Amino acid sequence: MSIYGESVTKLIEQFEKLPGIGHKSAQRMAFSVLGGTEQEAEEFAEAILHARKELRYCKICQNMSDRDVCDICSNPARDNGKICVVEEPRDVVAMERAKAFTGRYHVLHGCMSPINGIGPDDIRIKELLARIDGTVTEVITATDPDVEGEATAMYIARLIKPLGVKVTRIAHGVPVGGDLEYVDEVTIARALENRKEL
Amino acid sequence: MSIYGESVTKLIEQFEKLPGIGHKSAQRMAFSVLGGTEQEAEEFAEAILHARKELRYCKICQNMSDRDVCDICSNPARDNGKICVVEEPRDVVAMERAKAFTGRYHVLHGCMSPINGIGPDDIRIKELLARIDGTVTEVITATDPDVEGEATAMYIARLIKPLGVKVTRIAHGVPVGGDLEYVDEVTIARALENRKEL
Repeated sequence: MSIYGESVTKLIEQFEKLPGIGHKSAQRMAFSVLGGTEQEAEEFAEAILHARKELRYCKICQNMSDRDVCDICSNPARDNGKICVVEEPRDVVAMERAKAFTGRYHVLHGCMSPINGIGPDDIRIKELLARIDGTVTEVITATDPDVEGEATAMYIARLIKPLGVKVTRIAHGVPVGGDLEYVDEVTIARALENRKEL
Repeated sequence: MSIYGESVTKLIEQFEKLPGIGHKSAQRMAFSVLGGTEQEAEEFAEAILHARKELRYCKICQNMSDRDVCDICSNPARDNGKICVVEEPRDVVAMERAKAFTGRYHVLHGCMSPINGIGPDDIRIKELLARIDGTVTEVITATDPDVEGEATAMYIARLIKPLGVKVTRIAHGVPVGGDLEYVDEVTIARALENRKEL
């Protein structure tokens, strides 16, 4: 039998389901919630329920949003001609943090992975195709730099290039501020291959 | 304006309040909850509400419990003569993990800290005193090894020793498996002071 009884154990189990959270961290979190007031606990629970219930996807870029068209898609200042294709909503956050892209996004919600039975129809590729009209001049594939991400980028290129739209891939190379010693050999090979004249 | 809208931002803020969770981890957690089914989100919210609502304290040891007397206090196999005094419920978990103590606990819910205005009446010391009857032979102070924890242990010793009960303090020394090089000088001094003949 646990020391705290069932309800606390269940709460710890819920926190343990979160990514990167082990038993000890989950326990700390549960104790932190229980150490607060009842009102604070209610606010937390309400935030979960509300966010999940309000969750919808932007009908243009498929990113998470709480309205039909997200803030980025409805922002007239952004460049309509470029679409940056990413796997997950968190990738949009990462791209936006870099403040280096002023176009639109498209969130696939996954990547093609034959080994896991995920084909092109299981991710939002047809929604991307539907967006390719006269105004789009470039599709930048920013899927993850792993086997599935590369394959997904290649697949998208094969579909979209025949429509007369330029399809590009974000560059591979050594990370800025990284230590060359710790960079893996594939990345170093790519960094060499893609070297630029100074 | 945030990329995801208010409800997701609020959920991220809730996760950020948890101990040791920064913005990026909070975001990951929020996305993880939103990526699950609506039912899973409801279960999470319900676990928070239920645990917080059911939360009460064992009327003997003051530990968190979901009933009036906790499992440890109601376990007849445990030694009534020894009470181990700790600051927080999580310290009971740490002690129990060590499987080295078979007595009872007493949870103070904090420690004395004049600098933060926390005096003996703000933590559960009088509940500890109420437990000192003829059956208790030793009170082990296992408050944290910091200034406040030491002061609290000293205070408890001054209160309880006159009642004819032995009051002890857990040993300070170098952690088992630790690297001597990284142990702070105060701990090393204490470890030397408390050395044992082999």
